[in-house]
Amino acid sequence: MEKHMTSGIEDVWQPVPASRSARNTINPIRRIVDRMKITPNPAKEMISLSIGDPTHYGNMLPPVEALEAIIEAVQLPTCHGYAPSFGTLEARRAVAKFWSRSDYILKPEDVILTSGCSHALEMCIDCLADPGDNILLPQPGFSLYTTLCQSLGIETRFYDLLPDDDWKVNITHLESLINDRTRAVLINNPSNPCGAVYPEEHLRKLIEICEKHHLPIIADEIYADMVFSNHKFYFMGILSENVPVLSCGGLSKRFICPGWRVGWIVIHDRHNLFKDTIKPGLADLSSRILGPNSVTQAALTHILFETPDSYYDDILNQLQNNAEYVYRSLLEAPGLQPTMPQGAMYMLIRINPSEFHDIADDKDFFMKLICEESISCLPASVFGIDNFFRIVLSTPMEKTEEACQRIIEFCQRHAKSVS
Amino acid sequence: MEKHMTSGIEDVWQPVPASRSARNTINPIRRIVDRMKITPNPAKEMISLSIGDPTHYGNMLPPVEALEAIIEAVQLPTCHGYAPSFGTLEARRAVAKFWSRSDYILKPEDVILTSGCSHALEMCIDCLADPGDNILLPQPGFSLYTTLCQSLGIETRFYDLLPDDDWKVNITHLESLINDRTRAVLINNPSNPCGAVYPEEHLRKLIEICEKHHLPIIADEIYADMVFSNHKFYFMGILSENVPVLSCGGLSKRFICPGWRVGWIVIHDRHNLFKDTIKPGLADLSSRILGPNSVTQAALTHILFETPDSYYDDILNQLQNNAEYVYRSLLEAPGLQPTMPQGAMYMLIRINPSEFHDIADDKDFFMKLICEESISCLPASVFGIDNFFRIVLSTPMEKTEEACQRIIEFCQRHAKSVS
Repeated sequence: MEKHMTSGIEDVWQPVPASRSARNTINPIRRIVDRMKITPNPAKEMISLSIGDPTHYGNMLPPVEALEAIIEAVQLPTCHGYAPSFGTLEARRAVAKFWSRSDYILKPEDVILTSGCSHALEMCIDCLADPGDNILLPQPGFSLYTTLCQSLGIETRFYDLLPDDDWKVNITHLESLINDRTRAVLINNPSNPCGAVYPEEHLRKLIEICEKHHLPIIADEIYADMVFSNHKFYFMGILSENVPVLSCGGLSKRFICPGWRVGWIVIHDRHNLFKDTIKPGLADLSSRILGPNSVTQAALTHILFETPDSYYDDILNQLQNNAEYVYRSLLEAPGLQPTMPQGAMYMLIRINPSEFHDIADDKDFFMKLICEESISCLPASVFGIDNFFRIVLSTPMEKTEEACQRIIEFCQRHAKSVS
Repeated sequence: MEKHMTSGIEDVWQPVPASRSARNTINPIRRIVDRMKITPNPAKEMISLSIGDPTHYGNMLPPVEALEAIIEAVQLPTCHGYAPSFGTLEARRAVAKFWSRSDYILKPEDVILTSGCSHALEMCIDCLADPGDNILLPQPGFSLYTTLCQSLGIETRFYDLLPDDDWKVNITHLESLINDRTRAVLINNPSNPCGAVYPEEHLRKLIEICEKHHLPIIADEIYADMVFSNHKFYFMGILSENVPVLSCGGLSKRFICPGWRVGWIVIHDRHNLFKDTIKPGLADLSSRILGPNSVTQAALTHILFETPDSYYDDILNQLQNNAEYVYRSLLEAPGLQPTMPQGAMYMLIRINPSEFHDIADDKDFFMKLICEESISCLPASVFGIDNFFRIVLSTPMEKTEEACQRIIEFCQRHAKSVS
């Protein structure tokens, strides 16, 4: 911007301070990763395994049916105006129908459309808790939960996930965190960054604890149905008889279009515990910025119901093949201990610094891996657990193979020599 | 939703209360208008003059160039992934270039993309003020300002606009409201609901007051350049030498696509008073839900620069023709006193209840007009001023003519007989 320096204003007018909520809106990924100024090895092509954006390499893209639906919708004269703040009836009906089961029917009134799943999570957290209240969050867990809570002045209390038990919830630990200011438990299944898919019995135990303490559940189910063979996904809201559940989801991961910002909240409330409070509260909160783009809302029915099953089968196959390849490969890397994920699009890999002669921790591993091998992953400290790193599984197989090769060589080079 | 009544849970688990922010998120339009259960006259076709959605009747639609740009963008493999939370460089560069002047150059770093102008306003208010602080707002004014402030726990203080001075700001009144918790002044120009376009001199006086009290300006400039002949629009941020300005805008009104949810904040900060505080604060706040749909971001350069001037000239002509027609017509309606707007897409019309035998106030006028004439307007009490009503000027001329005819007959029927 052009400068017109006049009247020495800096002397009399101090910088304008940002609000507490702005100062407390901290993205730990940016905070930790961006501050490490690292130059990749110029001799090696960069391979990014850090960003959970499946479109990055072009091997996973939205279904052609979705693109056709957008092209058709944008030409309708009726889809450019304001939609109701919580979404059009047609779009809410489509989401309700998509997630209904023969024995569990959802209605359009149970759905609120949002500007991406992040917005769905923000609205649920904002609607359930006041500043000074607390919400229980998984650790390791998606960093946005912390960002949102801290930004809203809500205390974060982290319950442990168990790395040696398929990243299940340490329920005893979870229960020990509950106090009279606890307002909800956030459960992420299938999970980022762990790739865990919880079995029915484990979910029922979680619901039981929430029922005992009268705590509603925020279920981050953006990876709903993104599970590998021999695993099955269960909606918390369908399993839960008595505990009301706000399920957050969206198009992003299932239809590979995270940039489109189409999310939703599905309200599961069999006993009307939300009916006169949380349900209108969410509708009111939606009036602050309104929901997603009207063209994608007009296209939603087509996207959800015209995309053939083969599209998603192929996505799941790519993810599972990648996961199996990475798992098998990295079992051979000294100092690493991969866990085979059960779903979602990530793998967490344990680093044993004691097996390396010069790698102090996950951040050190992350930095040296970029410098030497031009591979970016995410140190799991950004998710609240040390000495793991997360890689995404949506890369094309040739990139995955090259990346694993380089990681193995890297580990071999840094491993303590066996005496 | 299907019900499975078990274990009499209602007896032991009370309804889950909504948070203060949800309870305080009140849309006064819905609160006042929705509660009046009114049935239109079944013998007359409904004419809606209440909603500020220019696409409603199909006579105003987005430019074909914008539709083409979306169709082109959605077919690019690169536009489906996450954009940076504050917007892509290309989209921010387009907005910066669009609003630059030969003597005032904006850079992409001065722009943050948002999910509609509402989101831009929310972020500015949230970033500048803490709960308990106050922001000065226009009265009558767009009800979203109040909704957002109350939702965030920020006190609202209303400065008067002067109906008999083209809805200019009562600057003395504005200044009297400032105290040590005042964090910003929000100025809406061209204005909703008044249709005022402030002359340069008036804007300079407002800037002067803000400079004297060291108060930054939030400029709601969503109707930028939407002015009728013989009026000129000035950006606050370009006029202001010393006061930092956050200008909120978007595609909605200029390109007739409010449902697309593409907005922006343009940061005018010649003396770096926002540089290390508000600017990064806004970027951090944008990471909560990310910005607008990636396809529209990819289309933005095309939309802004390929739409011919004739498109917008035609929109302005329609608005101005409507405004002139309504003004001339309603001058003849007993009990009404229209003000000719200078821009935007609204007219405020004064109601003199003393000239009617059975109309108590603007809400009564609004209700009876629907019941008898099937015409919906908005009682200006929702904007904070009594005994005015707002109509939108974007309807097709034949609807406008029919509506004016019915309003005149309505007023004649309810007017006190001249003795």
